Amino acid sequence: MAKIAFIGGTGPEGLGLAMRFAKSGNAVFIGSRSEERAEEAVQKLHAAVPAGDIYGGFNHEGAEKADFIFITVPASGHAEILTELAEVIDDKIVVDAVVPMSFEDKEGPVPSPPEAGSSAEEARTLLPKAKVVSAFHHLDAKALQNVDKPMQGDVIVCSDHKTAKKKVMQLVEEIEYVRAMDGGGLQNSRITEAMTVLLIHINKIYKSHSGVRITGI
Amino acid sequence: MAKIAFIGGTGPEGLGLAMRFAKSGNAVFIGSRSEERAEEAVQKLHAAVPAGDIYGGFNHEGAEKADFIFITVPASGHAEILTELAEVIDDKIVVDAVVPMSFEDKEGPVPSPPEAGSSAEEARTLLPKAKVVSAFHHLDAKALQNVDKPMQGDVIVCSDHKTAKKKVMQLVEEIEYVRAMDGGGLQNSRITEAMTVLLIHINKIYKSHSGVRITGI
Repeated sequence: MAKIAFIGGTGPEGLGLAMRFAKSGNAVFIGSRSEERAEEAVQKLHAAVPAGDIYGGFNHEGAEKADFIFITVPASGHAEILTELAEVIDDKIVVDAVVPMSFEDKEGPVPSPPEAGSSAEEARTLLPKAKVVSAFHHLDAKALQNVDKPMQGDVIVCSDHKTAKKKVMQLVEEIEYVRAMDGGGLQNSRITEAMTVLLIHINKIYKSHSGVRITGI
Repeated sequence: MAKIAFIGGTGPEGLGLAMRFAKSGNAVFIGSRSEERAEEAVQKLHAAVPAGDIYGGFNHEGAEKADFIFITVPASGHAEILTELAEVIDDKIVVDAVVPMSFEDKEGPVPSPPEAGSSAEEARTLLPKAKVVSAFHHLDAKALQNVDKPMQGDVIVCSDHKTAKKKVMQLVEEIEYVRAMDGGGLQNSRITEAMTVLLIHINKIYKSHSGVRITGI
């Protein structure tokens, strides 16, 4: 039973993950810049997981209390919110699920990483004391919210902190049928973040909610 | 029954793919800069696929005769060999399977794309008349060479040429149990090429010969 806060938890990915983790018995906190939007999201969560241990409020309140701080904000707000919360986050485990991409190309989304190389590496720069783990980029937000249907696919987990990585990998597998895959160091998040952009193209081509499974393991 | 030439076909990936395509009844040509190395590779192929329709010789001879020209050279020789063969390749279908990576980082391989953004995009620049298709980055070379064991995983195919992409996707599925996945335009090869680097990290961590399968389709 972990306490999990979702920074920017009112978006589709944060909401979907919160539903799944509430369902598996964890206490989840939906953080937002707006108490009203947090409250709306909490109501959606209660509807999806009536027995869930669900809270909501300002982002910093969640970050204070949580064992795991999930970052599920849009990439455009990533640096700003982490800078704002750095002191509260301190040396906690941060799970970065952000996908930096640009929509300016006529062919569709293109990876658009920040100067650090990836969102997760940007988090490492902005939160030097925190244990940053990159994960959860490939679980489709809509599929996650369909809580009664099992998820498919792997969650590839990258981090330079071995113990934190192991804890997050255990957390991953609390979502039924989902497998945690060790993806090596945080730098590999450049690749896992970009893979989400490929999945978006594939979703458009096949009208699907795709994910990824590593074969041969 | 297609004629498939492998430029740089003596390397492990070219050899493995040639074995599989010879096994499914295609005529394969192992191209090399050295007739001797081509001949050695042809002998290996005959040993693995005794009934195969297998040839070998200089790269340009293969490129002249083939319906599909596979590029399976090391990334360091990519630009040079394509420049050399541009006239012979002309407007044919080129299947680029090259993965540009650097081994200078202590944490392991890192994607190291050329200025064009990816090897496949570099091929498009150097072969403006050819129909460049990016594919076959995620089938493990060792697993391919184990011809009696079914392969696992998908081949993600990216191209700006719809008809050529379709033909290559049909060719992909001549390898038993392998599925072709439309990965959109050639630009997405930036992502599929980098994914191979992640698989190398995963192989090291799990001592595996991993591949990728897209779920939800």
